[in-house]
Amino acid sequence: MKNKKLELKFTPYEIISKKRDGHKLSDEEIKWFISGVTDKSIPDYQTSALLMAIYLQGFDKSETASLTDAMLYSGKTLKFEGTNVIDKHSTGGVGDKASFILAPIAHACGVKVPMMAGRGLGHTGGTVDKIEAVKGFQTTLSLEDFKKAVEKDGIALIGQTGEIAPADKKIYALRDVTATVESIPLITASIMSKKLAEGANGIVMDIKTGSGAFMKTRARAKALGKSLRDTATRFDKKMMTIITDMNQPLGDAVGNSLEIIESIETLKNNGPKDITEVSVQLAGGMVYLAGLAKSHKAGIKKAKEVLKNGKALESFRNLIKNQGGDELIVDDYTRLPIAKHQKEVLSLKSGYITSIACQEIGEHIVSLGGGRKKTSDLIDFGVGLIIHKRIGEKVKAGEKLITLYYNEGQESTVTSIEEEILSKNIKIKATKPTTLKPLIYDIDENPIC
Amino acid sequence: MKNKKLELKFTPYEIISKKRDGHKLSDEEIKWFISGVTDKSIPDYQTSALLMAIYLQGFDKSETASLTDAMLYSGKTLKFEGTNVIDKHSTGGVGDKASFILAPIAHACGVKVPMMAGRGLGHTGGTVDKIEAVKGFQTTLSLEDFKKAVEKDGIALIGQTGEIAPADKKIYALRDVTATVESIPLITASIMSKKLAEGANGIVMDIKTGSGAFMKTRARAKALGKSLRDTATRFDKKMMTIITDMNQPLGDAVGNSLEIIESIETLKNNGPKDITEVSVQLAGGMVYLAGLAKSHKAGIKKAKEVLKNGKALESFRNLIKNQGGDELIVDDYTRLPIAKHQKEVLSLKSGYITSIACQEIGEHIVSLGGGRKKTSDLIDFGVGLIIHKRIGEKVKAGEKLITLYYNEGQESTVTSIEEEILSKNIKIKATKPTTLKPLIYDIDENPIC
Repeated sequence: MKNKKLELKFTPYEIISKKRDGHKLSDEEIKWFISGVTDKSIPDYQTSALLMAIYLQGFDKSETASLTDAMLYSGKTLKFEGTNVIDKHSTGGVGDKASFILAPIAHACGVKVPMMAGRGLGHTGGTVDKIEAVKGFQTTLSLEDFKKAVEKDGIALIGQTGEIAPADKKIYALRDVTATVESIPLITASIMSKKLAEGANGIVMDIKTGSGAFMKTRARAKALGKSLRDTATRFDKKMMTIITDMNQPLGDAVGNSLEIIESIETLKNNGPKDITEVSVQLAGGMVYLAGLAKSHKAGIKKAKEVLKNGKALESFRNLIKNQGGDELIVDDYTRLPIAKHQKEVLSLKSGYITSIACQEIGEHIVSLGGGRKKTSDLIDFGVGLIIHKRIGEKVKAGEKLITLYYNEGQESTVTSIEEEILSKNIKIKATKPTTLKPLIYDIDENPIC
Repeated sequence: MKNKKLELKFTPYEIISKKRDGHKLSDEEIKWFISGVTDKSIPDYQTSALLMAIYLQGFDKSETASLTDAMLYSGKTLKFEGTNVIDKHSTGGVGDKASFILAPIAHACGVKVPMMAGRGLGHTGGTVDKIEAVKGFQTTLSLEDFKKAVEKDGIALIGQTGEIAPADKKIYALRDVTATVESIPLITASIMSKKLAEGANGIVMDIKTGSGAFMKTRARAKALGKSLRDTATRFDKKMMTIITDMNQPLGDAVGNSLEIIESIETLKNNGPKDITEVSVQLAGGMVYLAGLAKSHKAGIKKAKEVLKNGKALESFRNLIKNQGGDELIVDDYTRLPIAKHQKEVLSLKSGYITSIACQEIGEHIVSLGGGRKKTSDLIDFGVGLIIHKRIGEKVKAGEKLITLYYNEGQESTVTSIEEEILSKNIKIKATKPTTLKPLIYDIDENPIC
């Protein structure tokens, strides 16, 4: 009876109209609404009206925290012993395989790493999709088994489960079709509700900015960073936000198996400079947040050591083994699914690369079957591409720009991709670009650290 | 095939995000979206997100005209011969029975009057509900029969049909639950799509303002008036907008049968001053727009004549007869359903009436069963109330303020209504209010007239 009364305390209409008029919603109102979304007593059309009102009228720090809290407790939550349990999150990019490098690095430094990762979203790939290129790797542990694995082995990697923040899942699906994704408070609550439910003591956030990222400008990336740190502070979690460049793919490889290979090469100290640098920066942050180094700089130093001495590589091999995957792939890449055919895209002119259309590159992978157009699509792990020239580099006519990996029957798709790459995606000018964008823009911590 | 291509021209997402970002939607985009709403290919949650974006980012004149056009042609439309077919619309109020007086007046002056009226909405009563208090009156003619009746008899009154502007019906239902009703472009398109579909050559708009109206302030009422005239101009229709007061009920009677009786009394020249005045103003506008008078003033003069000489009363009697109703009610009110019991609410103190809570009075009628809480509720035509004292009038302790009409079993409801009237709804102060609000605020025409 008491519950019944609580249920009738507000109406969706009142709450929508309050936010529509630019007023602040109370903690109670936000929690009441989200509980109605979770138990489906509030219909989608009212939720989407509220989401648009939030998008346009905003949510302040405390409203964002209430929304995070409401979504966090809409499902199960995990708790870990000790203070060295640190998670990492990336806002998503093209060619971003940093998780496979930084997690073993941090683990090899003594950090406990509970990774609950996502699948591909739009033009960006997903960590879970990529690791599933490794035959046998189990990404669907129960929450209990996940917790045990982290406590026993110090590292585990699973996909998002419906048990964690179901309200976020429901709301994200609606945002995706109602043009309310790009709202900083809504993004913050979505990320933080999941990350807090996963029970880490600290989180390192890699906020991507640029043409291939969801945050197109550095100002938006900074604003998201601040909102994430503010929310972390309210939940007594340590957080470091690092804003990194996504104006071209990270590393040379894009596509599931190809990215796993590049990750292993990086763990063998043969990786591209950019992905190595970003991974070490993020892993160094995790070591620092875990209390295993006195500063971020000291954390980076430790990270570099375990990368150099092969301990990080061993940690990755063990992760695969622990979760039932074929760990022999670490030494034998032919054990991974790789597309049968290759097509070299050769430059039509000489000059300097001035831009690489990052989002479009990601979309080409999707069109080859390396990502999903709809949730039910199966992924072709073997397709992908290798970028041979990066922004600022010199190229001669006839030189390789990109190698495409594709399967039988995809010839016409490959032809149209090649045309797009040459005519639009990679721009070449006669003079060398005078300024190049940095790889790392900003590093910030919340005051708890 | 061509149609199929047209269908894929846009996506709901693109259109929502364009309006979300404050950009103007094209005529084609608006029509595409509304056709998707009508054929149900666009889900409600996307429509409600767009409605909230329109509410907050606005629609300009041409977007409003496109929306009106799209909703207008979502269903059937009527066309009448001649230029003397004039309709009237009121934005809704409490005790507003003007239609039953002005329509016979205009008709008696030679105007053809096609009335397609609404049912009760929230605290406001509905013309169709009220006329259904008259036994036998048919409000559900087919569109064809309605057209024939207007052409033959010069006047007909029916309820809204699903054949007219079905997109508006769908969108209105969504607006009602997503806090997007009070948007001037959306209100304009909703009213105008229906009124234009009904095929009149000109429309007189009664825009109510005040505590009992949907437009609470005069500025909002003026803005709605301008938006309606702008839209009428774009569709080559004559329009007059009259802003009238709704800070207290219009006339003394509120409730279905009681309002029919008051309407007939007014047609017999025994009605309250306010309802008589508003009806004559609006009817005079209709006579003018029909080209049967050279000015609004001249129209009013003609209106007063037919009211005085009984021709308007005869027109009302014939309207009832034409549509199968019991026309004997005009001379014998006992033939109408009237609640069995009456309760006099007596003033507790002496002084001057300074305010009458109009919306609450309307809600009391709903709570007695004279209006609907949900669409499927049946109406009790006999309940209602008579207001004996109006704003500015003197009252003595023990004098009648209001008479409530109710049925057996409603005693406790009546007791709580009485308490609310005495404690909150009617305010009495010692000194006479120095300024009284006018009954008519503004009268404007669009340039076509």
